[in-house]
Amino acid sequence: MTVTVAIDCMGGDHGPEVTVRAALDFVRKHEDVCAILVGIEEKIRPFLGNAVGPRLVIRHASEVVAMDESPALAIRAKKNSSMRVALDLVKNGEADACVSAGNTGALMAISRFVLKMLPGIDRPAICAALPTVSGHVHVLDLGANVDCSPEHLLQFAIMGASLVGAIEHRERPTVGILNIGEEDIKGNDVVKRAVELLKDSELNFVGNVEGDGLYKGEADVVVCDGFVGNVALKVSEGLAQMLAVFLRREFGRNLLTRLAALIALPAIRHFKHRVDHRRYNGASLLGLRGIVVKSHGSADVFSFGNALDRAANAVRSGVLERISLRVTRQAGPRAIQENV
Amino acid sequence: MTVTVAIDCMGGDHGPEVTVRAALDFVRKHEDVCAILVGIEEKIRPFLGNAVGPRLVIRHASEVVAMDESPALAIRAKKNSSMRVALDLVKNGEADACVSAGNTGALMAISRFVLKMLPGIDRPAICAALPTVSGHVHVLDLGANVDCSPEHLLQFAIMGASLVGAIEHRERPTVGILNIGEEDIKGNDVVKRAVELLKDSELNFVGNVEGDGLYKGEADVVVCDGFVGNVALKVSEGLAQMLAVFLRREFGRNLLTRLAALIALPAIRHFKHRVDHRRYNGASLLGLRGIVVKSHGSADVFSFGNALDRAANAVRSGVLERISLRVTRQAGPRAIQENV
Repeated sequence: MTVTVAIDCMGGDHGPEVTVRAALDFVRKHEDVCAILVGIEEKIRPFLGNAVGPRLVIRHASEVVAMDESPALAIRAKKNSSMRVALDLVKNGEADACVSAGNTGALMAISRFVLKMLPGIDRPAICAALPTVSGHVHVLDLGANVDCSPEHLLQFAIMGASLVGAIEHRERPTVGILNIGEEDIKGNDVVKRAVELLKDSELNFVGNVEGDGLYKGEADVVVCDGFVGNVALKVSEGLAQMLAVFLRREFGRNLLTRLAALIALPAIRHFKHRVDHRRYNGASLLGLRGIVVKSHGSADVFSFGNALDRAANAVRSGVLERISLRVTRQAGPRAIQENV
Repeated sequence: MTVTVAIDCMGGDHGPEVTVRAALDFVRKHEDVCAILVGIEEKIRPFLGNAVGPRLVIRHASEVVAMDESPALAIRAKKNSSMRVALDLVKNGEADACVSAGNTGALMAISRFVLKMLPGIDRPAICAALPTVSGHVHVLDLGANVDCSPEHLLQFAIMGASLVGAIEHRERPTVGILNIGEEDIKGNDVVKRAVELLKDSELNFVGNVEGDGLYKGEADVVVCDGFVGNVALKVSEGLAQMLAVFLRREFGRNLLTRLAALIALPAIRHFKHRVDHRRYNGASLLGLRGIVVKSHGSADVFSFGNALDRAANAVRSGVLERISLRVTRQAGPRAIQENV
């Protein structure tokens, strides 16, 4: 099976310089993949050399969705944007997945408009992996939905478990819900009701996960509303950046500490690799009738390449079929109940 | 002026071993403080030696609120708990502040029951300081209120600004609201309406602060509901612990890396001191008619001592009066409007 990925080459802080270079590495690394480079041809070509071939083609798209553009406007007014054309390719079956480092809100809105939702799923959710002490955890939603119902959280859990089940070949990944610890005030109403739904579901539900439990690897999948998820993600980014600044400051303090840093370099390098957020780049937009992966806007070639790998993996492992199957299974008893 | 602090000696994971020792250091360090050691006398005395005197007295209390006890039960059934007696001392004016490392939910509920709320404040909030790249930030609420109205968030902002104004002698500390970044979905309804209230207030409101902005020091005070605040705090704790584990693992890998760690020790020590959460121990329970500080349950002597210092500082700087004054000022125009 060949996996074809449509790449929005114009998105992100660096545009084709990063996206096209990453695409080159991507087709070199995997024999079973094709890349369709979508965007303004004359901006793409300089980074391509003579590499165009059957596994690497350009699809010209004359417009670009700006990073701060209104999603509604992007849908209405930019029908020939690189983002829109890449998603159209997924819609009409020319591509199996779309990857973009562009405007998240626009990517979400256009994906929903072009691809539509999977049956049984009300809203798309943003899902990404984070490192934990023992491996990693998939968290969703990371910002697509600020207000969620308990049913939405259940759907997120089903989608997250399907994703992990597919890409990591785990039959019953554990699922937790992000919550707070005080016994008497445990969770708001939505979370409390979601807990009941999750307990009654077919999922391998392990209960509440507190903020610190996220990084302790207490569950393979953790669900939360998009507001809380986005805050958790951004707080983590901010804290990691601050600690890096402090470490650099301490090791840069004087000649002796700089020498110490030099000697400690191999250990520090291992550490940096271990927690390198670029390795975790590529958030899945789940719930759509098609595979869409959002890269961080600031991604470099290595980082964007990981988002491409993530998209190809999702295709190979049949994530969409898994989600559909699980949603149908979950809806089963309820549908019967409703008929009674 | 003498500052008298009532210490719930039985609370926390370590009880009198930590709390009494910290109290000894506390009265030795500050000439203007007295400590009332509240709890089971025969458990307190062994850690005290001959140190009892006019500035260090024991107040026997026969019961202990367990860490997992229901707050409602603790109020009803344990009228002679160390926590309750310590708060009664604040209520009747024998002490200026209460510090406890016990059950947070119970401390919150008993404080509210015994001390009552300040006029104009509907709910208490938990406020703590976190380090930032350039200093620190006070965040509230960290878990007392899972569901908040826009008016509650405004009250939190007033209380936080009053606290920072008082203890750091800053007339107009900056205030932000924790929010998420996507333009079109910026914030849920409550946050959006709170932003309007904050803009119309007398506060030095700087707008939205995203998760990563918290650690960048984008505001002196950041408000959020207790669910989001608790998740942000715990996620930070979890990430910091994970990074520490990874660093230790890398430096412990072999003889060479262990040697490197030894050489890097001074820099690592500085770094650890810089981000030592024990230095930030002591969360203020704001909004009550009395000063109550909650220590982390796992606090050691150094850490609990910081919570004691924080309580004494709050008394010295007149935090309660500041909050009352600001609430009255804020309510002013509204009260007039309501009369018209």
